[in-house]
Amino acid sequence: MYGYMGKILRVNLTSGEITEEFPDEKVLKDFLGGAGLSTWYLINETEKGIDPLGPDNKLIFMTGPLTGTSSPSTGRYSVVCKSPLTGGWAQANSAGYWGRDFKRSGFDGVIFEGKSPKPVYLLTNDGKAELVDATEIWGKNTSEVTKILKEKHGKEYNVSGIGPAGENLVKYAAIMNDCDEPYYGRAAGRCGVGAVMGSKNLKAIVSYGRQKIDVAQPDAYREEAKQRYDWVNQSLLKMTLEVYGTATMVDLVNVKGGLPTRNWQTGVFEKVDDINGTAINETILIDRKPCFACPIACGRISEIKEGKYASKGEGPEYESIGALGTMCGLEDLNAITYAHFLCNEYGLDTISTGNTIGFAIECFKKGILTKGDTDGLELDWNDPTLIIELLGKIAHREGIGDLLAEGTRAMAKKLGKDSEKFAMNVKGLELPCYDSRAAKITGLAYATANRGGDHITAYIEGPAFLAMPFMIVDDADVGDPLQEIPEKTKVVKDFEDAFGVFDAIGGCKFMGMVLTAEDWASLISKLLGREFTVDDFRKTGERIYNLERAYLIREGFSRKDDTLPARLLEEPLPEGPAEGHVVDLDPMLDAYYEFRGWDKDGKPKKDKLAELGLDWVIDIIY
Amino acid sequence: MYGYMGKILRVNLTSGEITEEFPDEKVLKDFLGGAGLSTWYLINETEKGIDPLGPDNKLIFMTGPLTGTSSPSTGRYSVVCKSPLTGGWAQANSAGYWGRDFKRSGFDGVIFEGKSPKPVYLLTNDGKAELVDATEIWGKNTSEVTKILKEKHGKEYNVSGIGPAGENLVKYAAIMNDCDEPYYGRAAGRCGVGAVMGSKNLKAIVSYGRQKIDVAQPDAYREEAKQRYDWVNQSLLKMTLEVYGTATMVDLVNVKGGLPTRNWQTGVFEKVDDINGTAINETILIDRKPCFACPIACGRISEIKEGKYASKGEGPEYESIGALGTMCGLEDLNAITYAHFLCNEYGLDTISTGNTIGFAIECFKKGILTKGDTDGLELDWNDPTLIIELLGKIAHREGIGDLLAEGTRAMAKKLGKDSEKFAMNVKGLELPCYDSRAAKITGLAYATANRGGDHITAYIEGPAFLAMPFMIVDDADVGDPLQEIPEKTKVVKDFEDAFGVFDAIGGCKFMGMVLTAEDWASLISKLLGREFTVDDFRKTGERIYNLERAYLIREGFSRKDDTLPARLLEEPLPEGPAEGHVVDLDPMLDAYYEFRGWDKDGKPKKDKLAELGLDWVIDIIY
Repeated sequence: MYGYMGKILRVNLTSGEITEEFPDEKVLKDFLGGAGLSTWYLINETEKGIDPLGPDNKLIFMTGPLTGTSSPSTGRYSVVCKSPLTGGWAQANSAGYWGRDFKRSGFDGVIFEGKSPKPVYLLTNDGKAELVDATEIWGKNTSEVTKILKEKHGKEYNVSGIGPAGENLVKYAAIMNDCDEPYYGRAAGRCGVGAVMGSKNLKAIVSYGRQKIDVAQPDAYREEAKQRYDWVNQSLLKMTLEVYGTATMVDLVNVKGGLPTRNWQTGVFEKVDDINGTAINETILIDRKPCFACPIACGRISEIKEGKYASKGEGPEYESIGALGTMCGLEDLNAITYAHFLCNEYGLDTISTGNTIGFAIECFKKGILTKGDTDGLELDWNDPTLIIELLGKIAHREGIGDLLAEGTRAMAKKLGKDSEKFAMNVKGLELPCYDSRAAKITGLAYATANRGGDHITAYIEGPAFLAMPFMIVDDADVGDPLQEIPEKTKVVKDFEDAFGVFDAIGGCKFMGMVLTAEDWASLISKLLGREFTVDDFRKTGERIYNLERAYLIREGFSRKDDTLPARLLEEPLPEGPAEGHVVDLDPMLDAYYEFRGWDKDGKPKKDKLAELGLDWVIDIIY
Repeated sequence: MYGYMGKILRVNLTSGEITEEFPDEKVLKDFLGGAGLSTWYLINETEKGIDPLGPDNKLIFMTGPLTGTSSPSTGRYSVVCKSPLTGGWAQANSAGYWGRDFKRSGFDGVIFEGKSPKPVYLLTNDGKAELVDATEIWGKNTSEVTKILKEKHGKEYNVSGIGPAGENLVKYAAIMNDCDEPYYGRAAGRCGVGAVMGSKNLKAIVSYGRQKIDVAQPDAYREEAKQRYDWVNQSLLKMTLEVYGTATMVDLVNVKGGLPTRNWQTGVFEKVDDINGTAINETILIDRKPCFACPIACGRISEIKEGKYASKGEGPEYESIGALGTMCGLEDLNAITYAHFLCNEYGLDTISTGNTIGFAIECFKKGILTKGDTDGLELDWNDPTLIIELLGKIAHREGIGDLLAEGTRAMAKKLGKDSEKFAMNVKGLELPCYDSRAAKITGLAYATANRGGDHITAYIEGPAFLAMPFMIVDDADVGDPLQEIPEKTKVVKDFEDAFGVFDAIGGCKFMGMVLTAEDWASLISKLLGREFTVDDFRKTGERIYNLERAYLIREGFSRKDDTLPARLLEEPLPEGPAEGHVVDLDPMLDAYYEFRGWDKDGKPKKDKLAELGLDWVIDIIY
C-alpha cells in the first residue's frame, strides 16, 4: 500500500496480547495518518469521561504517510490520548529519527490499551513486535535508558520513551526520542503524553527496520521531493534557523514587547543579549543537527565546558529559553541550558515546567505560597540553583514538587486567592513564549487550539510577531498586530487546518513557510498514487480539526473554555511597544466561530460536519 | 515646513542662473516628494517628444520628506528625467548618505534645465548654491572625482555625480554617490540618468549641511522611528541580508531555475557555489556597511588582495553578480567583483551593462556579430579578460563599445536577424536577474513597470521567487509561481503603489518586508503634522503610479510596449524546476489593466484619473 506499511499494532498491556490491523480505505482517505488518524481511533474507541491516567485511556503513536520518505522534514510521529493535564484532547509530536525507524520496522502506528502489571517496553523490528520487561531501566533518565537499550539490541535501534517524570505521572511529562549521541533528544512534549505512558507502565518503544515504504510514482516523487528539499535548502528560513536555531526568535519577540518575563508580568526582558541566538553561538554551541530528511538543521548541540553546569546536550530551544529563562527571570544562559538538558533527561515539557515554576515564584512573592509549603525554599526570580532543584523535585514528585507536578491550573485551584488570574494556561495547558497582549491574534489562537494553550496548532506567531512568510495558506496577513481584527481571524482557521495536515502526514510546520499547499498536494498525490488536490489538502485539514474539536465537545468543553488567563485579558502590559495593551478576545472569537461554521458556543454545526463527511460525529456531540 | 526644507533649486545650466521655489501645498500633498514630485515637474515642464539628451530635457534630483530623518532606511533620493535608453520615463534612486547631506544643505531637490557651455558641478551648503567649473575633473572616475572634491571643499562634503560613461552618453550610464572610503559607491543606476547628466555638462553635485529638518511631533516621531528601527534590527530580514548581503538571492533564485545564465539561455548556473553569499563571505568580504539610518547593512565592502584584480570597493550586489556573472557565463568571483568595481568607477548600470555584453556574446556566437565588428575580439562565455576590456570600451565608447553603449534594444534594431528576440529588455531597459519563466508573475511586473524592465517597481520577485514576507501590502501571496493566475495580478498593482510611496518619501523597499502601511502612515503623520492614513498611503501610491503612466502614454507608449522579449514568451526554459515553461502574458495583462482601472490598451480611464485627483492629466493623454 503506497505511503503506508499497512499495519497498525494494537497492544493490550493488561494482557500482553499484540495484534495487527489497519483502517479501511475511507478512514485513511479522510484522516491520512499521524494525529488525524489517531484522533479517529481515540474518539471511536474511548468512552466519554474516562480517567486519563487509568487503563481505559488509549495511547496512540502514529506516523504519517510521508514519514520516512524523501520529502523535506518528514520524520515526524504523533502521540494522541486523553490529556491528564487538560482533560481534553492530547497531541504531541516529535521528529528526530525515531519516527522513521519505527515506520521502517514495519508499522504505521501502535495503539496501547490497558495497563501493564509491570514495567515493559515494546520492541519492534522487521514486522515483528514484542513486549519486554523494563524493570531494570525503570526510574532511569532518558539518555541512560537509550544507551542501555542500544547496548542490548544494537546501536541501529532507536528509542522513544519516558524519564522519571512520566513514571511519576507528572501531568506535563514528555515522551522523548533520539536521546543519546549525536542528537541528545527531541521531545513530543506537550499535554502530558508522558504521564499517560507512565500510567501504563510502558517505558519505551525500541525500533529498527529496513522495510521499504512503497511509493506510487517513485521516480517522480523522488525528483519532486529533491527539488522541494533544494528549495528549502536555499531559503531565508534555512539561512536564519540554521545559523541561530529557534533562538532566532528571542530578539524578534522581545523587540515587540511580547517575551513573557517573570511569569508574564512584563513582555520585555532586560538581559536578552545574554540569552539569544548570538549568545548561544558565541558561548556554548558545538554543533547543528537536522532531523530526518531536513535541510534546515535548527537543532542545537551545546556544551557547557566547565563549572557546576558542565554538561552536553540538545538545545536550548526558543521555548525553553523563554519558559525556563525569561519566565523565571533567569539571566544565566548556562543555567538555562543545563535546566533544559535536565528536562530532556527527566522527560519534562519545558514550556509547562517553566510556566509552573514561574507561577510558583509569583505565588511565593505574593504570600500565596510560604516556606512552609516549599520545603523551606525561598522562591525568587533569577535563582538558577532554585530552578535546578525544583526540576528534580517535580520529576520525582518530592516535597513541593508534588504540587508543581500538577501544573498551573490545578495548583491555582488548590491555592485559591485569585491565583488563577496569573496561572498562565488555556484549558490547563501552559502557554508558550509569546505574549498575546503584544500580538492580539495569537490570543485567539491560544484560546481555540484544540490541545489547549499552544502556539503551533496555528503558528500565527510567525506572521503576527515575526514578519515571517508562510506560503502554506493563501493569505497569511494578520494586519496590525496590536488590533483585534475580526476579519483576520480566518487566517487562524486557515493555519490550523493546514498544519492539521502536517500533523497527519508527518511533516514539520517550518516547511509551511517555504512550500505551498500545491507543493504538498502534489507530493502526497505522487506518494499515494491517487489524486490529492489543494482542495483535498484544505478540506482534510478542516475535517481533522473539527474531529478534534468534537472530541473536546464530547468531553464537556465549550466556549467558556476558549478563553485566556485574566492576566492577558485584564492586566495591561506595563512597558514596551505594547504598553497598555490587553486582549479583547470576544470579537475575535465570534468572527472565528463564524468562519469555522460553528455555533456561538463553539460547537460545529451539523451542516459543517456533514460537509466535511463527519455525519457520524453528529450523534456523538448532539 | 515640517518634513521639508521648503526650497527646491532651479538651475538653468545654459545661463548659469539659479533660483529657488517650492510647489504649493496641494502638489506636495498629492505627490509627497522624491520620484512622485519629480514626475509632476517632468510632465508639466517638458514637451512631448523632446530629445532626452538635448537641452530641453530636465534632470531632477529630489529627496523625500523622510530623507535624512530618523525613520529606518530613509536616506534615499530619486533622479527623474526622460530616459535616453527607453524614450520614456526615467527614474533611478540611491541611498548611502548623499541624499541626507544634500537635504541638510538646505534644499529638498534641484531641477536642472538646459545645457552648460562647459563642464560644471553644483555646490550646495547652508542654503546656498553655486555652479563651479568642472573642467579639471571631467573625464575622471567617480572615486577620484569624489576624492578631489573632498580635498577641495572638505571631507564633510559628499558627492553625487557621473563617471566617464555619463560624460560619453552611454545610454545606461549611472549617477553614483558616496564613492570613496568607507562606502565606495552607491548607484542611482537605471534608465541612463547618468547620460542625461553628462549631456548637460554636469559632472556632480557636492553637498554638505547641518540645517535641521523640522518635525511636527519631534518626540513622538523619534520614539516611534526608534521602535520601528528596532523591529527591523531584530528581524529575519536583517539576519539574512546583513550576513549574506543581497547575494543571499543567488542560491534562492538558482534553485528555482530562474537565474539568467549566458544571456538567459538557461536559468540554472552550474557554478553557483563559487559566486554566492557564502563564497563572498569566505573569500573577499572585509566589511558590511549600512546606508543612512539603516539597521540592516546589506552593503558589502570587498577586497581582492592579490593578482591582476587586486582592488577594493563596494559589492558585489546580487544584480551585479547576475548581470556581470551568470548572464555572461562568468564563474570567477574575483573577476565579477572587479567588473562591478569598474562599473562603479565608470558610472555604469551593472544590470544593463551585463545584459548588453551577454547579448553581444550570443550575437557573436550566432554570427550576427563578427570579429570585423568587435575590434578583432573573440566574444565567448566565461571570459573575464573580455568582460573587463569591454567595460572600458563601453564607458569610453571605443570601437565595439560605441555600439554596446546603446543598449540591447538599439543594438538589436541595428543588427537585425531576429536578434531582438533575445535582446533582454522591456521598453529598452535591460532586465534584472530573475527569469520570469520560473515565476510567471514577475513577467507581468517587468512588462508593466513604468521605467521599463525593472524588478523594484513592484518587488514581486520577493514573494514569487524567494518566499519573502512583505508586510507593506495586505496580501502578498502570488500563488503557484509557475502558473499565470489573473486574479493574483492585483498583488503587482498593490506592490507598485506601495513602493511608489517609498520612492516619494525617500524610503528603502526592503523596509516593506517588515513594516506595514500602518507603520509608515503613522510615521508620515507625525513627521508632517497632518493626518496621513493607510488609505492616503495607498491612494498616493496609486496616484503617483498613474501619473508616471500618463507620462509614458503621452510619449506614445501603450499596450504594445507592455511586453517581454520573445525569449521569455516563446522559448521554454531547457532545464531545472521550470523546465518547459514560457510566460503567457496576455491573460495577466488583461486582468492587471482591469485592477488598475485602465482600458484594454493600458491607458488610465478618465474616471480612474478623476478618482485620484488627476483630472488635469485627462487633457494630456486624451
